[in-house]
Amino acid sequence: MTLDRPLRYGMVGGGPGAFIGDVHRRAIALDPNTDLVAAAFSRKHESTLQTGRELLMDESRLYPDFQTMAAKESERSDGIDFVVIVTPNVSHFPIAKAFLEHGIHVVCDKPLTTELSDAEALGELVEKTGLLFGVTYTYTGYPTVKKARELVQSGALGPIRFVNAEYPQEWLATRAEQDPDNRQASWRTDPAQSGKVNCVGDIGTHIENLVSYVTGLEISKLSARLDSFVGGRTLDDNATIMVEYNGGAKGIYWSSQIAVGSDNALRMRVYGEKGSIEFSQEDPNYLKVFSLDGPQQILSRGRDALGERGDSIVRIPAGHPEGYFEAFANIYKTFTGALRKRITGDSPDEHDLDFPTVHDGIQGIRFVARVLESSEAQGTWIDF
Amino acid sequence: MTLDRPLRYGMVGGGPGAFIGDVHRRAIALDPNTDLVAAAFSRKHESTLQTGRELLMDESRLYPDFQTMAAKESERSDGIDFVVIVTPNVSHFPIAKAFLEHGIHVVCDKPLTTELSDAEALGELVEKTGLLFGVTYTYTGYPTVKKARELVQSGALGPIRFVNAEYPQEWLATRAEQDPDNRQASWRTDPAQSGKVNCVGDIGTHIENLVSYVTGLEISKLSARLDSFVGGRTLDDNATIMVEYNGGAKGIYWSSQIAVGSDNALRMRVYGEKGSIEFSQEDPNYLKVFSLDGPQQILSRGRDALGERGDSIVRIPAGHPEGYFEAFANIYKTFTGALRKRITGDSPDEHDLDFPTVHDGIQGIRFVARVLESSEAQGTWIDF
Amino acid sequence: MTLDRPLRYGMVGGGPGAFIGDVHRRAIALDPNTDLVAAAFSRKHESTLQTGRELLMDESRLYPDFQTMAAKESERSDGIDFVVIVTPNVSHFPIAKAFLEHGIHVVCDKPLTTELSDAEALGELVEKTGLLFGVTYTYTGYPTVKKARELVQSGALGPIRFVNAEYPQEWLATRAEQDPDNRQASWRTDPAQSGKVNCVGDIGTHIENLVSYVTGLEISKLSARLDSFVGGRTLDDNATIMVEYNGGAKGIYWSSQIAVGSDNALRMRVYGEKGSIEFSQEDPNYLKVFSLDGPQQILSRGRDALGERGDSIVRIPAGHPEGYFEAFANIYKTFTGALRKRITGDSPDEHDLDFPTVHDGIQGIRFVARVLESSEAQGTWIDF
Amino acid sequence: MTLDRPLRYGMVGGGPGAFIGDVHRRAIALDPNTDLVAAAFSRKHESTLQTGRELLMDESRLYPDFQTMAAKESERSDGIDFVVIVTPNVSHFPIAKAFLEHGIHVVCDKPLTTELSDAEALGELVEKTGLLFGVTYTYTGYPTVKKARELVQSGALGPIRFVNAEYPQEWLATRAEQDPDNRQASWRTDPAQSGKVNCVGDIGTHIENLVSYVTGLEISKLSARLDSFVGGRTLDDNATIMVEYNGGAKGIYWSSQIAVGSDNALRMRVYGEKGSIEFSQEDPNYLKVFSLDGPQQILSRGRDALGERGDSIVRIPAGHPEGYFEAFANIYKTFTGALRKRITGDSPDEHDLDFPTVHDGIQGIRFVARVLESSEAQGTWIDF
Repeated sequence: MTLDRPLRYGMVGGGPGAFIGDVHRRAIALDPNTDLVAAAFSRKHESTLQTGRELLMDESRLYPDFQTMAAKESERSDGIDFVVIVTPNVSHFPIAKAFLEHGIHVVCDKPLTTELSDAEALGELVEKTGLLFGVTYTYTGYPTVKKARELVQSGALGPIRFVNAEYPQEWLATRAEQDPDNRQASWRTDPAQSGKVNCVGDIGTHIENLVSYVTGLEISKLSARLDSFVGGRTLDDNATIMVEYNGGAKGIYWSSQIAVGSDNALRMRVYGEKGSIEFSQEDPNYLKVFSLDGPQQILSRGRDALGERGDSIVRIPAGHPEGYFEAFANIYKTFTGALRKRITGDSPDEHDLDFPTVHDGIQGIRFVARVLESSEAQGTWIDF
Repeated sequence: MTLDRPLRYGMVGGGPGAFIGDVHRRAIALDPNTDLVAAAFSRKHESTLQTGRELLMDESRLYPDFQTMAAKESERSDGIDFVVIVTPNVSHFPIAKAFLEHGIHVVCDKPLTTELSDAEALGELVEKTGLLFGVTYTYTGYPTVKKARELVQSGALGPIRFVNAEYPQEWLATRAEQDPDNRQASWRTDPAQSGKVNCVGDIGTHIENLVSYVTGLEISKLSARLDSFVGGRTLDDNATIMVEYNGGAKGIYWSSQIAVGSDNALRMRVYGEKGSIEFSQEDPNYLKVFSLDGPQQILSRGRDALGERGDSIVRIPAGHPEGYFEAFANIYKTFTGALRKRITGDSPDEHDLDFPTVHDGIQGIRFVARVLESSEAQGTWIDF
Repeated sequence: MTLDRPLRYGMVGGGPGAFIGDVHRRAIALDPNTDLVAAAFSRKHESTLQTGRELLMDESRLYPDFQTMAAKESERSDGIDFVVIVTPNVSHFPIAKAFLEHGIHVVCDKPLTTELSDAEALGELVEKTGLLFGVTYTYTGYPTVKKARELVQSGALGPIRFVNAEYPQEWLATRAEQDPDNRQASWRTDPAQSGKVNCVGDIGTHIENLVSYVTGLEISKLSARLDSFVGGRTLDDNATIMVEYNGGAKGIYWSSQIAVGSDNALRMRVYGEKGSIEFSQEDPNYLKVFSLDGPQQILSRGRDALGERGDSIVRIPAGHPEGYFEAFANIYKTFTGALRKRITGDSPDEHDLDFPTVHDGIQGIRFVARVLESSEAQGTWIDF
Repeated sequence: MTLDRPLRYGMVGGGPGAFIGDVHRRAIALDPNTDLVAAAFSRKHESTLQTGRELLMDESRLYPDFQTMAAKESERSDGIDFVVIVTPNVSHFPIAKAFLEHGIHVVCDKPLTTELSDAEALGELVEKTGLLFGVTYTYTGYPTVKKARELVQSGALGPIRFVNAEYPQEWLATRAEQDPDNRQASWRTDPAQSGKVNCVGDIGTHIENLVSYVTGLEISKLSARLDSFVGGRTLDDNATIMVEYNGGAKGIYWSSQIAVGSDNALRMRVYGEKGSIEFSQEDPNYLKVFSLDGPQQILSRGRDALGERGDSIVRIPAGHPEGYFEAFANIYKTFTGALRKRITGDSPDEHDLDFPTVHDGIQGIRFVARVLESSEAQGTWIDF
C-alpha cells in the first residue's frame, strides 16, 4: 500500500550558519513527498524563527526548545512522523531520548552520543519502543559501497585478510578554532561540546562504520594512538589505530585533520584471498576491483551492475556524476521507505532496513571509547 | 525584497519512464521554495494523472494537454510562474510558444527546436514579451566551469589559440532503438521526433554551448562530417567538426554515441598563449589549470577560489562531491533567483542572469544547421 | 645459432648537445652485445672527436664525414654491421643512400626524408640490396602497444569504426627558435633543415605510424588544416586532420606544439563495434580496455598478458615502471635480433621483423605530403 | 680530471634466471664507460660460464667462487674497480667482507645483511678501509624523490608532523613458494636464505630508507605487528608499524605481499605544517605537492625544476617516461662518479656521495631487528 500523504518531519538543530542541517534538508528534498513541517533549529528562538521564515514554514510549529517540540508534535493528529537531530554531539542523547519517549521516530547525526552508556541507553529505548532509529553515517549510502559489501558477502574476494582504511582532512592543520567565524572548528575542538575526542569521533567513526558495513568484520581488539599536533589544542586531531577482527583478519585505520592537501579523503581498501576492492569517497561513482593475477577493473555507477541493492538507489545514468547529497539522500530514502511501510502496515524487509541504525551508532561510540582507552594506556591492546 | 511565497512551476513532459523530467524535478527541489503545482506530463492524460498522483499533486491541475494548461494556468491568480518543457525535441517550439503567448516564463530543454527559423521565432517572442527564457544546457552550471570562464575572461590564459572539445558516449554503439524498452533510443534516432539530426543535436550542441560560454569565442565558419556507423540508422551517431572563430583561434569538436567505453565523457581543453585549462564533466569537482613552463594545478571545488560566480553556487565543502544534479540545480537556482527579482520588482544583474538563454538556444540550432549543411556538402567550409 | 661476437654499429649525427643521438646510444646499450665502434657525430670533425673521446672510442674510426665513414667501414673485415642516422631531417636521404650503397644495414630516425620521392628511392634501394632498414618510430616499441595491436587483430574489439589520436606538446608555444641555446627549436622550425613542415612531420607522423601499426587501417583520403599560431614562424605548429580509411572507418588526428601544459602527450583511442582501447604514451605501462556494457579494465605491463609479442619484450616485473628508453630499446632489440639471424644464416620470422621499416618510413612521408596538399587547398579531401 | 679508461666491475650472483642481477647490469649499461669484466654469477661454475658466454665475457675471469674472484682480481693490474653483490640475503655479509678485505669497492643489494651485528661489522670495515660502499635502495634514485627531499630540507613544507608510507604487493598472496619455477618466492620465504624476516626485510626496508632519505627524520621508537597470512608460511608476509621520530613527528608504515591487486605500489606521503608531498613509485615521473589552502600541484620530471640534484640526473625531456632502470642507474651513476673521482685523485663532494651507503644499510637492518623485537613482544614500543 502506498502512503497517500507526504511524510512529515521536524528538525532539531540546523539553524543559521549550520552546515549539516542544511545538507539534511536538501538531501531529503531530493526525493519527493517528505516535508519539513516543524523545527527547533536553534537554542535561540529568534534564530529558529529566522530559518523557519526563510523556509516559508508555519510559525506555529517553530518551537523554542526540543522538549516543547516533542510534546506538542506528539499531540497533533498531523504531527511529525520523525525528527532529524543535527545538534553538536553532546546534546544528541537528551534530544533523541525525548522524541523516542514521545513515540516519534528518530534520525540522528553521528557520533550518536559522547558516552557509551548513553548510546546503550538509546539502544534499549529503541528496542522497548520499537521505533525506527537512523544514524546518518553518510558514506554507506553510496551505491558503490553497496556493491563493495555485496562483493564481500558473495565471497568474490575470498575470506578477508586485511583492511587499510583512512580519512585524512586538512581543515584543522592550523588553529582554526581561534577564528571566531569558524564555529565548527570551535565546537569540534571544545571538550564541552564534543566530548572527550574530536578527530576519532568525527571522522574515525566513519571509518569504523564503513569497514564494518562493507566487510561484516567485528573488531576483537585494537591498539590506538591519538595525537594532537596543533599547539594549544586539547583534543586529538590525528589517530592511528591497529585492529584485529574476529576470525583472524587485521587492519589499520588512520584519520587525520592535519593532513595538508586532503579535503575529505575517506578511502578504504579491503584485501581478500582472491580479490580486493578500493573505494574513495572523493571519487564515489567508481569502485576499483582487483583479482589475483587479473586486470584492474573500474566499476562505474550506472554502467556496471552494482547488485540488487546498489542498483536500486541509482538516480541517473553513468557518467552523470552523483555525489554526497545522493549518498545522504539514500540513507533517508531507505529510512523513509521503511517508515512508510510501518505507517501503512506493511513489514519492511532487509533491504528496506538497510540504513545505519542505533546499533551502528552504539558500535561507533564503543569504538571511540576503546580507542581512547588504548591511547591513554600507550597503545596497549584493548578487547573490543 | 524577498518573495514571501514559493515560486510555482508547471511541467510539460516528464511522464512515466521519462528520464529527464524526473531530473528537472529533483534538481529544482534541491533548493527550497520552488513547488511543482501543475502539469501535462504526457499526451496520455492517464499517464499524467498517474505521475501526478505519485507526486501527490492536486488533480485539478493535471491537464490533458499543454494548450489547456497554458490557458487555465494563465487565468489563475495562483497560476504557475514558469513552465518547464521536457518533451522530445520536435514539440519544444509549439509548447514554448504557447506559454510565452500566455505570459508565462519558460525553461526549455535543449536543443531548443528542430528548425532554426522556429528558434529565431522564439527569440523574437521572448524579446517582445520580455519574459525570462532558460535553456537547460546543464554543464555550464558547474562551479568549475564558471571558474574556467573567469580564467579566460581575466586574461590569465592569454589570447585563446585552440580548443579541443569532445563528447563521447557508448549508448548507441549497438542498434538500441530496436529494443522496445529503450524509448529514448527510439525517439532520438527517429527523424519524426528528433528532426534532421541525432548526435550533433543531442550532445554536439552541449560542446558548442560549453565552449562558447567558457571562451566567449564566436564561430566564424566550420567544416563538418556526420557519420552513421550503425547499420539501419538514418540519423548521425558521430560528428567531427573543425571550427574557426572570429579573431583567428581554431578548434575541433567531436561528439559520438558509438564510443564504446565512454559513459558521458564531455571534455574541453582550451589553449591560450600563456595557459590552458581542462574540464571533464565526469570529474566535475576539479579543474586542471596549466601555465607556460609551470606545474599542473588541480583546482578543487570548495577548496580553491572559483571566482565570485563559481563560489556563489557551491553548496558543500571540498571533498564532498557535487555532481550532475547540482549543476542542473544551479541553472534553476539562477533562473528562479532572477524570476523572484522580477516578481518582487527588483532588477536582476549580470550574475542573476547567468543562465543559458533563448539566445544560447538559437546559437545551438544555428550550429546544428551549419554542421548539417557542411556535412551534406562533403565538409565544405560554411560561414556561421 | 648464436652470434659469438658483439654486433658493431656506427653513428652519423649525435654530437655534442644533440638529444636524440644520446638516446639511441643508451637505448642500444640497455641490451648487451651491441657496441658503438665508428662515428661521424658531427659535420665538424673536432666535435666528432670530442664526443668520441668522451665515449672512449678508437679515434681511427671517428670520421670527418659520412661518405668516408661508409667507404672505410665497408672495407674493414671488422666493419660496422649497421649505421644509425640521427641527423636533421634534410640529410637523412643522402646518408642512408650512401650506407645502403656500401652494403651496410641502416637504422634511420624519423621522418625518413623530406621528399616523398627520396623516401620511395630508399625503398627501392632497400628492396634491391635486401638490407635491413629500420625507422625509429619509438612508440610502437611499447609492450602495451603490441597488446593493442593484438587486440585489434584478434577481433576482440570487433571491426574498427573510429580512431581519435592526438599528440599535443607545449615546447613551441612561444618563439623558442629565437633562443640561441635552443638548437632543436631552431632547426625544426627552419625550412632549410626540416623541409616543408615542422609539427606534422615531427610528431604528426608518429600518430600516423602508431594508428597504422595498431589498427592495420590504411588511409584512403584525408582533409587537413595546418596552423602556425606563433608570430614570425613559417612552418606549422599545429595540425588537425580528418581521415577516412579503406573499409569505412574514420578518424581524427591532432598534433600540436602550442598546447600549453602538455609535455609529450601522444594518445590514441580506437573504437570498434565491441570494444575500444586507449593508450597514453606518458603512462605507457598501462593499457585501458573497454567493452560494450562491461567494466573498464586497466592492463598492467608485466602483470597482465600482453600477447606473445608484447610479453617477449618486457624486461622487469609489473609495478617497476618501464619507459621511453625501453620502448626505444625494443625497436633496436628487434632490429638487431633480426640482423644477428641474417649474419648467422637464420631466417628472421614475422616477430623478428616487427620493427618499423622503410615502408613505414615511406608511408609517413606520404602522409606529410598529402596533409600539406590538403591544407594548401583549404582542407579539400585528398586521396592518399 | 677525467678517467681515460672504462671503470671495471665484477658481479657475484646474477646467474641464469636471476632477476635482479640482470637489472643491475642493464642499469649500469645505461650510462657509458663502466664494463663488466669478471664474475662469479652462481655457486655452480657451469652456470657462471653459461651466463658469461651469453655476455661474451672473457672466460678467464669467470670464477668458481667469490673468494677466488676477490683474490685474483685484487692481484691484477687491470682488476675490477668494484664488485656488485646480488646474491640471496644470507650471503651478502661474507661476500662483502671478502671484497672489502681485498681492497675492492662494493655495491651490495639490500637488505645489507640478515644480522645487525654483521651489518655493523661491515660498517666498521668500510670505515677502516676507506672504500666506497653502496647499497642499492633503488627508489631514492628517482629525480622526483630528490625533489621531495629538497622540499623538506628547504622548509617549504614546514616542520614535518606525520608520515604515511606503504608498500603493498600481491605476489605472495598465494603459496607461490610451492611453485618449483618460482625461485624468488622460494628463497625469500625460506629462513635459511632470507634470515628471520621476509616482507619487512625485502620491502619494509625500502619504506624505512625512503622516508629517512626524504625527511631526514630519525626513528626514536616503534611498535610493530608482523603477520603471516598464508598458511604454511613461517616468515612474515605483511607488516604494520607505528613509528615515532626524534622531534615529535609520527608515522605509520605498512608493507604487504598479500595485497591482491598491487604490483609494486610503494607510496609515501609526508605532512608538514605548511605543505605535504606524495610520491608513488609506480608513477615516478610526477610528484604531488600540496600547500595549506592551495591548489594541488603535480610536478613533472623534466618540465618542472626538481632541484640541483634532481635535475642533474634527468636523462630525457618531460613526457618521455623514465622508470625503474633509470632510478637504478642513478644510484650507479652517482656511485661510479664518486669512484672515478677517487681514482683520479679528486675529492667527491656531497652530491657525488648522494647514494645509499653502508650506513643506510645498517639502519635498514636495525629497523628490521627492532620490528621483529616489537612484534614478538605483542607490539610493545621498542626504542630504536
